[in-house]
Amino acid sequence: SKYEYVRHFETQDRCLPNCWIVVRLDGKNFHKFSDSHEFSKPNDEAALNLMNCCAVYVMNEFQDITVAYGESDEYSFVFRKGTTQFSRRASKLMTNVVSLFAASYVFNWSKFFPNKQLMYPPAFDCRVVVYPSDENLRDYLSWRQADCHINNLYNTCFWKLVLQGGYSTKEAEQKLKGTYSSDKNELLFSQFDINYNELPQLFRKGTVLFWQKVEEKLMKHFKSKDSERLETKEVTRVRNVVVTQHIDIIGDEFWKLHPEILGKAKS
Amino acid sequence: SKYEYVRHFETQDRCLPNCWIVVRLDGKNFHKFSDSHEFSKPNDEAALNLMNCCAVYVMNEFQDITVAYGESDEYSFVFRKGTTQFSRRASKLMTNVVSLFAASYVFNWSKFFPNKQLMYPPAFDCRVVVYPSDENLRDYLSWRQADCHINNLYNTCFWKLVLQGGYSTKEAEQKLKGTYSSDKNELLFSQFDINYNELPQLFRKGTVLFWQKVEEKLMKHFKSKDSERLETKEVTRVRNVVVTQHIDIIGDEFWKLHPEILGKAKS
Amino acid sequence: SKYEYVRHFETQDRCLPNCWIVVRLDGKNFHKFSDSHEFSKPNDEAALNLMNCCAVYVMNEFQDITVAYGESDEYSFVFRKGTTQFSRRASKLMTNVVSLFAASYVFNWSKFFPNKQLMYPPAFDCRVVVYPSDENLRDYLSWRQADCHINNLYNTCFWKLVLQGGYSTKEAEQKLKGTYSSDKNELLFSQFDINYNELPQLFRKGTVLFWQKVEEKLMKHFKSKDSERLETKEVTRVRNVVVTQHIDIIGDEFWKLHPEILGKAKS
Amino acid sequence: SKYEYVRHFETQDRCLPNCWIVVRLDGKNFHKFSDSHEFSKPNDEAALNLMNCCAVYVMNEFQDITVAYGESDEYSFVFRKGTTQFSRRASKLMTNVVSLFAASYVFNWSKFFPNKQLMYPPAFDCRVVVYPSDENLRDYLSWRQADCHINNLYNTCFWKLVLQGGYSTKEAEQKLKGTYSSDKNELLFSQFDINYNELPQLFRKGTVLFWQKVEEKLMKHFKSKDSERLETKEVTRVRNVVVTQHIDIIGDEFWKLHPEILGKAKS
Ligand SMILES: Nc1nc2c(ncn2[C@H]2C[C@H](O)[C@@H](COP(=O)(O)OP(=O)(O)OP(=O)(O)O)O2)c(=O)[nH]1
Ligand SMILES: Nc1nc2c(ncn2[C@H]2C[C@H](O)[C@@H](COP(=O)(O)OP(=O)(O)OP(=O)(O)O)O2)c(=O)[nH]1
Ligand SMILES: Nc1nc2c(ncn2[C@H]2C[C@H](O)[C@@H](COP(=O)(O)OP(=O)(O)OP(=O)(O)O)O2)c(=O)[nH]1
Ligand SMILES: Nc1nc2c(ncn2[C@H]2C[C@H](O)[C@@H](COP(=O)(O)OP(=O)(O)OP(=O)(O)O)O2)c(=O)[nH]1
Ligand SMILES: O=P(O)(O)OP(=O)(O)OP(=O)(O)O
Ligand SMILES: O=P(O)(O)OP(=O)(O)OP(=O)(O)O
Ligand SMILES: O=P(O)(O)OP(=O)(O)OP(=O)(O)O
Ligand SMILES: O=P(O)(O)OP(=O)(O)OP(=O)(O)O
Ligand SMILES: [Mg+2]
Ligand SMILES: [Mg+2]
Ligand SMILES: [Mg+2]
Ligand SMILES: [Mg+2]
Ligand SMILES: [Mg+2]
Ligand SMILES: [Mg+2]
Ligand SMILES: [Mg+2]
Ligand SMILES: [Mg+2]
Ligand SMILES: [Mg+2]
Ligand SMILES: [Mg+2]
Ligand SMILES: [Mg+2]
Ligand SMILES: [Mg+2]
Repeated sequence: SKYEYVRHFETQDRCLPNCWIVVRLDGKNFHKFSDSHEFSKPNDEAALNLMNCCAVYVMNEFQDITVAYGESDEYSFVFRKGTTQFSRRASKLMTNVVSLFAASYVFNWSKFFPNKQLMYPPAFDCRVVVYPSDENLRDYLSWRQADCHINNLYNTCFWKLVLQGGYSTKEAEQKLKGTYSSDKNELLFSQFDINYNELPQLFRKGTVLFWQKVEEKLMKHFKSKDSERLETKEVTRVRNVVVTQHIDIIGDEFWKLHPEILGKAKS
Repeated sequence: SKYEYVRHFETQDRCLPNCWIVVRLDGKNFHKFSDSHEFSKPNDEAALNLMNCCAVYVMNEFQDITVAYGESDEYSFVFRKGTTQFSRRASKLMTNVVSLFAASYVFNWSKFFPNKQLMYPPAFDCRVVVYPSDENLRDYLSWRQADCHINNLYNTCFWKLVLQGGYSTKEAEQKLKGTYSSDKNELLFSQFDINYNELPQLFRKGTVLFWQKVEEKLMKHFKSKDSERLETKEVTRVRNVVVTQHIDIIGDEFWKLHPEILGKAKS
Repeated sequence: SKYEYVRHFETQDRCLPNCWIVVRLDGKNFHKFSDSHEFSKPNDEAALNLMNCCAVYVMNEFQDITVAYGESDEYSFVFRKGTTQFSRRASKLMTNVVSLFAASYVFNWSKFFPNKQLMYPPAFDCRVVVYPSDENLRDYLSWRQADCHINNLYNTCFWKLVLQGGYSTKEAEQKLKGTYSSDKNELLFSQFDINYNELPQLFRKGTVLFWQKVEEKLMKHFKSKDSERLETKEVTRVRNVVVTQHIDIIGDEFWKLHPEILGKAKS
Repeated sequence: SKYEYVRHFETQDRCLPNCWIVVRLDGKNFHKFSDSHEFSKPNDEAALNLMNCCAVYVMNEFQDITVAYGESDEYSFVFRKGTTQFSRRASKLMTNVVSLFAASYVFNWSKFFPNKQLMYPPAFDCRVVVYPSDENLRDYLSWRQADCHINNLYNTCFWKLVLQGGYSTKEAEQKLKGTYSSDKNELLFSQFDINYNELPQLFRKGTVLFWQKVEEKLMKHFKSKDSERLETKEVTRVRNVVVTQHIDIIGDEFWKLHPEILGKAKS
C-alpha cells in the first residue's frame, strides 16, 4: 500500500559479530512489588525460585544462551558469541526474552506462592550489552555477583537490625553508613549470632544456570524383523539440560570446571 | 568494584527529540499459539478483547501514550512527541511496554477464557520506530489499519471456503491467489451470502485506544465548619479515561474529531 | 575471499527519513592555526573568505544542500529533508563534505593569502545532526548565528583592550567577566569610539549561502535549416547559483523572502 | 541561549571499548580523478607515494594508530584497542583522519607531481569499523591486501592487453572474464614476457605503515659544573618513527616479527 514507506523509518540494530551478547532484565519497581506481595526480607526464597524457574524456561526456549545469572529482581542471559538468533537484532533479542520471562512469571506464580494472590502483573526492563572478550564477559558476571554479595550483606544486617534489633529504618541506615564488609560480618556475628558464610548460598551467591549433558536411560519397545514378539531394549540417550547452581563464578574454579560455557574444549 | 568498568560497554539509545515514538509489539509464533488454544477462525473475539484489555492496562501505566492501535496479535503504542518517559531510551520503552503487556496477557487470560486453560506463556517481540511528522505518524497508523483490512478480508474468505465451502486449505489458497478486494467481497456475497461490510467492526477495523476526559459526579461527605452535622455535596470531577473504538482512522474524520491526540487544540 | 566476512562488521547509519540533515564541520585547533598564520584579530577577512569559498565549492558539489551557514572556523551544511544523497548514510555525508572542504581549503589558500605560505595542512572535525521540524532547523541556525554574535562582540572588545587599550590578556579577560551585551557595546563606543553595529556584517552575522535562480543571456550561434549563413540568437537560460549573504537569519524576514530554502512555495 | 536545546539532537557514537577501531578512507570517484591527472596505468608510483606520504602524516598526528595499510585510492588506519582518542567518538575519528588526509594530499601534491597541476581538490569517503578480536583484525587487513592483489593482477593484464596488445577495452574485458589467477600469470608471461612476481612490491602488496623504535645518536653540548669549558657528549635517544614497507601481511611472518603492533610482548 501507499503507506508502506513508513517501514523505512525502522533502524537496523544488529549486534557486533563475534561478541558475547548479554541480555539483562530487571524488575520494574520491585521495591513496591515485593512490599505488595509481602516478600520476606531481605530474601524471599519463593520469589527467587520463581525468578529461577522463569529463567530456566527462557533458556530452554533460546538454546544459544550459554549461561545465565540471577539475583534479586534481575537476570542476565548470555548468548554465545556466534549466535545468529534473530540475526542478532538487539530489539528482538531483548523483547522476546523479557516478554517470555514476564509471562512465565505470572504463569508460574501460583506454583511458588500457592497461598498468595498475584495482585497485579509485573513489568521488567531489559537491555542488550555486547562484550568483545571472554575476560570482559567474566568481569561482567563478576560485577553482578559482587553486586549480589554487597547488597545481600547490607540487607541482611539492615533487616536484622530493624526486625530483631529494634532499630528504626533510619537508625539502621545510620548505623551501617560507612561500614566495611568485615564490620558487617562482625555485627551479624556478635549481635545476632549469625555466621554470614553459613547463610544459604542462594542468597549469598545468586543463581547460575548452564547446560549440562546428561545420560538418560530409556526403554525402547520394538518388533524385531523376524518375529512377531514385542521386544524391549534399554537405550542410552544424551540430553542437554539446564543446571541450577548457587556458586562462586568470580574465581577461576567454576570456569575451569565448565570451559564449554565459553566455547572452549574440555581439557 | 574493579568490575564496574563493564558498565561502559552499554550504549545510549535515546530517541530523537521532537518525534513521535511508536512502540509496536507482535505475538511470537501466534500461528501456533492460536492453534494450541483453538482460537476461532479467522477471528477470535475473546482473544482480541484480551489483547485490548492488556493494551488499556499499558496505556494507564504510561500516560504519555496518546493513542494505540491493535489488530490480530499486534499492538502499536504512540508516545507523544515530547515525552521524556525513561529519558526516551528506546530499550527501556520497548521492554517495559512489552513485558507489562505479556504479563497482563497471562494475568487476564482467565477473564476472557474462563473455560480454557492457558497452555504456556506467550512471548511478544517489540520495536521502537520514530516518526518526525504528524503525516508520517498517520501514515504509520493507516498502514497498520490497511494491513488489518487486507488480512481480514483474505482470512474471512479463506476460512469460509475451508470451513463451509468444503475446500482444502491448498485449494482455498489457490482460489484466492491474485484476486482483488472486489473479487473477495463478491465471493463472500454470492457464495456465502455475507456482506463483508456488516461483519463486526472489531474484526474489520481493529481497535483504537485514546484518552477522553469524562465528567464524574461523586458525593463528597464533609463536616461543615460551624456544625457537627455531616453534610453531603455533589462534586464534579474531570477524569481522563481510555476509550476503546473500532473505527476508521485512515480518513480525516477521526483526526478532526480528536485533534488533541496529535497535540492540537480542539477547533 | 575467505576474508570477506569482515564486511559484516560495518554498521548501517542511515539518517532518519523526512528530517533535515545538518552537517557541521569545525577547524581542529584553529586557535593554534590562526596564530601560526598570523590571522588578524579578532577577525581575518581573508580567512573568512577562504572558508566561504570552500563552502561554495561544497554546495556546488552537493546540490541537495539547500542552505549553509558559516562563522569563525566552522560551517554548517543543511541537506534538504528528502535527500537521498549517499542513501542518507551519515558517515558518507560527513566524510565527503569535510574532506572536500579541507582539500579546497589548501587548494584555494594562495588565492586568499597570496603572500603567506600555508605552514601545514589543517584538519576539521565534522558531525551529522538530524532535525525533524522546520522550527528545529531554524533554531539550529539561530543557535549558530547567536553564537557568532556573542563570540564576536566579546572578541572585538577583548582585542581592542589588548591591542589598543594596553591591557594584558589576563586583565582584558577580567574586565569582561560578567558583562552584558549592552556593557560591551558601551565599552566599545565610549572607550574606542566604535559603533559595534557598524562593523562589517561578515564579522557580526557570519555568512549564509543558498541557491538562487538567475537568468543568463547568452549568444547561441547556429546554422538555420535552409541557409548556409551562420545566424546568432540571444537565448535566456535559468541557472541555479549559490548566493553569499551576511545577514540576519534569526528573524522571520529572511525566511519569508526565501521560502524555497525550506521547500515551501513562494507566496 | 534559548536555541541551545538543539544540541540535544546530537547522538552519541562511541565505539565499543576493547575493540580495534579501523578507519578506512577511499578516494571519491578516483576513476575520474586519475584520468584527469593522467595517472599511469595501472599503477602510478607518484600517486601511490603521495597517498603514503599523507598516511604517514596522519599516523604522526594520531599516535594511537598502531598500523595502517594502503592500496589504490584507499587507506586503512587501525587505532589500538584501548585508545581513548576523541573518547572513541566515531564521527570525530573518521572526520579528523579523512580531512587531514585530504588536506595533506593537496598540500603535498607538488612534491610528487612537480610538473603536473592539481586540477581540482579531491574528496574521500571514510568509515569506522570495529573488530573485537585480533583474528578479525588480521582478517580485515588480509581482506584489503587480497583485494590489492586481485585488482592489481587484473589491472596489470588489462592494461597490457590494451596498451601493448592492441585490444580495445571491451575486448580486454572479454578476454579476462572468468580467468583464474594462474591464467593471468600465464598470460602476462607468455604474451608479454612479464613475471608478475617481479613487479614492484609497492604495486603487488600495497603499503603497510607501523611504528619502530630507532636509536638516534646526537651531540649534546653542556657546561660542566666545575669548569667554564663547554663540553660535548654523545647521547643516545630512542625515537618512535613510522616505517613504510611493501610486504605480505596475510601470512604469520610479519606478525611474528612485529608482535607489538597487536599490543603483544616481543618474544
Ligand atoms: N523483600 C524482598 N525484596 C526484594 C527481594 N528481591 C528484590 N527485592 C526488592 C528489593 C529492592 O527494593 C528491589 C530491587 O532493587 P532495584 O534496584 O531493581 O529497584 P526497583 O526494582 O525498586 O526499581 P527499578 O524499577 O528497578 O529502578 O526489589 C526479596 O527477595 N525480598
Ligand atoms: N485463529 C486465529 N488466529 C489468529 C487470530 N489473531 C491472530 N492469529 C494468528 C494468525 C496468524 O497466524 C498469527 C499472526 O501473524 P504473524 O504474522 O504475527 O505471525 P506469527 O505470530 O505466527 O509469527 P511471528 O513470530 O510474529 O513472526 O496469529 C485470531 O483471532 N484467530
Ligand atoms: N585571529 C583569528 N582567529 C580566528 C579566526 N577565526 C577563528 N579563529 C580562531 C579563534 C578560536 O581560537 C578558534 C575557533 O574556536 P574553536 O572553539 O573552534 O576552537 P579550536 O578550533 O581552537 O579547537 P577545536 O579543535 O575546535 O576544539 O579559531 C579569525 O578570523 N581570526
Ligand atoms: N591510472 C590509475 N588509476 C588509479 C590508480 N589508483 C587508483 N586508481 C583508480 C582506478 C579506479 O578506477 C579507482 C579506484 O576504485 P574505486 O573502487 O575506489 O572507485 P572510484 O574511486 O572511482 O569510486 P568511489 O567514489 O570510490 O565509489 O581509482 C593508479 O595508480 N593509476
Ligand atoms: O514479522 P513480519 O513478517 O510481519 O514483518 P516484520 O515484523 O516487518 O518483520 P520483522 O519482524 O522481521 O521485523
Ligand atoms: O537501575 P540501577 O539504578 O540499578 O542502575 P542501572 O540499571 O545501571 O540504571 P538504568 O536502569 O537507568 O540503566
Ligand atoms: O565502494 P565499493 O564498491 O568498493 O564497496 P564499499 O566501499 O564496501 O561500498 P560503499 O562505499 O557503498 O560502502
Ligand atoms: O567544540 P566545542 O567546545 O565548541 O563544543 P562542541 O563542538 O559541541 O563539542 P565537541 O566538539 O566535543 O562535540
Ligand atoms: Mg536499572
Ligand atoms: Mg528493579
Ligand atoms: Mg534490581
Ligand atoms: Mg514481525
Ligand atoms: Mg506474530
Ligand atoms: Mg502479527
Ligand atoms: Mg567542537
Ligand atoms: Mg575549532
Ligand atoms: Mg569553532
Ligand atoms: Mg566504497
Ligand atoms: Mg574510490
Ligand atoms: Mg578504492
